[in-house]
Amino acid sequence: MDPMRIVEAQCEQNDSRILMLVMDGLGDLPRETDGLTPLAAARKPNLDRLAGEGACGRFDPVGPGLTPGSGPGHLGLFGYDPTEYEIGRGVLSAVGIDFPLRRGDVAARFNFCTLDPAGRITDRRAGRISTDENRRLVGLLRRIPASAGVEIHVETESEHRGVLVLRGDGLGHALADTDPQHVGVEPLPVAARDEASARTGEIVSRFVSEARQALAGEARANGLLLRGFDTLPSIPSMPERFKLRPVCVAQYPMYRGLARLVGMDVPRPPASLQALPAAVRDHMPGHDFCFLHVKYTDKAGEDGDFDRKRAVVEETDALLPALLAIGFDVVVVAADHSTPVAHKAHSWHPVPALVWAPGRVFRDLVETFTEQACVHGALGRMPLRYLLPEALACAGKVAKFGA
Amino acid sequence: MDPMRIVEAQCEQNDSRILMLVMDGLGDLPRETDGLTPLAAARKPNLDRLAGEGACGRFDPVGPGLTPGSGPGHLGLFGYDPTEYEIGRGVLSAVGIDFPLRRGDVAARFNFCTLDPAGRITDRRAGRISTDENRRLVGLLRRIPASAGVEIHVETESEHRGVLVLRGDGLGHALADTDPQHVGVEPLPVAARDEASARTGEIVSRFVSEARQALAGEARANGLLLRGFDTLPSIPSMPERFKLRPVCVAQYPMYRGLARLVGMDVPRPPASLQALPAAVRDHMPGHDFCFLHVKYTDKAGEDGDFDRKRAVVEETDALLPALLAIGFDVVVVAADHSTPVAHKAHSWHPVPALVWAPGRVFRDLVETFTEQACVHGALGRMPLRYLLPEALACAGKVAKFGA
Repeated sequence: MDPMRIVEAQCEQNDSRILMLVMDGLGDLPRETDGLTPLAAARKPNLDRLAGEGACGRFDPVGPGLTPGSGPGHLGLFGYDPTEYEIGRGVLSAVGIDFPLRRGDVAARFNFCTLDPAGRITDRRAGRISTDENRRLVGLLRRIPASAGVEIHVETESEHRGVLVLRGDGLGHALADTDPQHVGVEPLPVAARDEASARTGEIVSRFVSEARQALAGEARANGLLLRGFDTLPSIPSMPERFKLRPVCVAQYPMYRGLARLVGMDVPRPPASLQALPAAVRDHMPGHDFCFLHVKYTDKAGEDGDFDRKRAVVEETDALLPALLAIGFDVVVVAADHSTPVAHKAHSWHPVPALVWAPGRVFRDLVETFTEQACVHGALGRMPLRYLLPEALACAGKVAKFGA
Repeated sequence: MDPMRIVEAQCEQNDSRILMLVMDGLGDLPRETDGLTPLAAARKPNLDRLAGEGACGRFDPVGPGLTPGSGPGHLGLFGYDPTEYEIGRGVLSAVGIDFPLRRGDVAARFNFCTLDPAGRITDRRAGRISTDENRRLVGLLRRIPASAGVEIHVETESEHRGVLVLRGDGLGHALADTDPQHVGVEPLPVAARDEASARTGEIVSRFVSEARQALAGEARANGLLLRGFDTLPSIPSMPERFKLRPVCVAQYPMYRGLARLVGMDVPRPPASLQALPAAVRDHMPGHDFCFLHVKYTDKAGEDGDFDRKRAVVEETDALLPALLAIGFDVVVVAADHSTPVAHKAHSWHPVPALVWAPGRVFRDLVETFTEQACVHGALGRMPLRYLLPEALACAGKVAKFGA
């Protein structure tokens, strides 16, 4: 049996407070020239002190060789087996724009695209139109009438990206993508993969053809490509599973959405990286677990910008004195996945993590928080979902199992 | 869920090429005098370079404390959970002599043995008769007529060892061994363990008694001991599971047979250790994964010959420049199990392994390929079946999981 079942059964509430600081995409690879990663190259006295006083290790978000999207990576951090709960792109996009998705809603991500007169795709991103342009076009699509008692919500995400949400009784989400993923061909028809989704497929199909009429006068964004149809997954919440009272402090909507999916309270986003400690301080009352998300390490990794990734680590490190002053019994610093600057993309490499909990965690010999140092840490190499139980135990929130 | 299920779902084909060099039974224990293993004592500049540029770790073929046979060890290397697929000794022996085993055939391994006038076993190996002698005796057994529409195939393996294969409709393989594993007692009767194997049991029983008549005039090999009745297991192939186009380059029949069981192409065996690189070069076209098997490390371990095991490592190391010149994106060097010279037998100790994939694998601080150094490697300690996904990911063959 997965020991997480026992962790759930043994969890009990107390007043100890846990901070989980997630530096998105933090993990990286040693560069050729000097063997350093952005984390290793950064001046980060506070993170190094926490590593020195705590325990370090490396964690696989999903499993060996598996590159996680943001959903699976965060599920792992929150103590979930990401192979048990798949969250479709449509749902992630919807929660990512703070759309108040309800159980039974069907959400899909869409791209505006460019079609030639024969209906073939010439640009899957419609020339990367501006977000303002997107809003104007969404205005046109919203005039398409509701269909057979099913509400249709069309929302701007950014640039050429948007979200389609269907709301009504008896909808199915087993619909194939209409995005063929390459140009020179027509969009795929809306195809239902099961009987229960047939009617939903017809509604989406009608919407798509009416959208083409509504966009017929557009030079670039005259078509839609849909993908990632899904419905809200039924995930037992962190309060139910771990008896936690968790709160999310994150600037980016997708992470706020993910936090909401696992039952965290999600107050308004802070305005900047520098505003994070004050936000944590303001929102901790009534909570005993804070998921604090820093996005910019991942962005710098995706851009292949070593120096900026290092700088983000340094800026985050500078927040730690203010964060620690708030008063936490346990501090976890981790990542949802690696985003090596050399790859400019997520990767499968395990993420470095530290657990600081004076007198509670096994203090290993690691004195600096780097990927290389974490290889030698006491936490070893484990599935990412086992990081949370270590923090819970250090916080005294897990009762003894068995007599 | 086992993350291997996700690996299977995310695998995609590309042109990157993986070499998996397996040094059979490579893992060993530090000897008393100087703490060296044969691997550590060997001069092996090429393996050390790969370790220095790559990542190292240790892998458990089956699980902690479990000593694997060759079947489970190789299944782990090929990405299978060896606890899910048992391959009986009879099947291993049959595929090991290139016998064209078909689905539904029942195979058993047999020993020629010596029986005294009262029918009690005096030598379980019939004085280790020669393989030529074995062939002569198999000639006698082949004269025993087919029985009730069931073909009986008798094959020489080597020395006192042979293979019995039954072919026909409705055979069952749930038959107990007739080898009591010690002398001074009669061979056990052929006992069916389920209803479906009752008729097969009778056929085998009749064959055994007719064999005793056929061998009645022999001084040493006048009886048969049977064990490991089994039928071909239904194993999803590596091409199905991982979208690989794998090829096996191995000199020994059993490993070629194992490779065939998991869907590898198996061209004719190379004539010598030195011929391996040319064989790999010749057979790579049309393939993207090469399982290259070196047997002699295990043989030296079984013989308790430290110096010979070290020498085999050195000879294998010398093949690497020619192997690398063929052009591989990822090189894995590993073993199917440990065979410590001090044990003269397989053991349960995790096997050392390295993954070389410049710019893709996490380059750790390990600079030499030894069991001790691998303790400190970035791959950590994992079940052996998780080694393949690391190689697949480094080869860009595993798509991102989740949005």
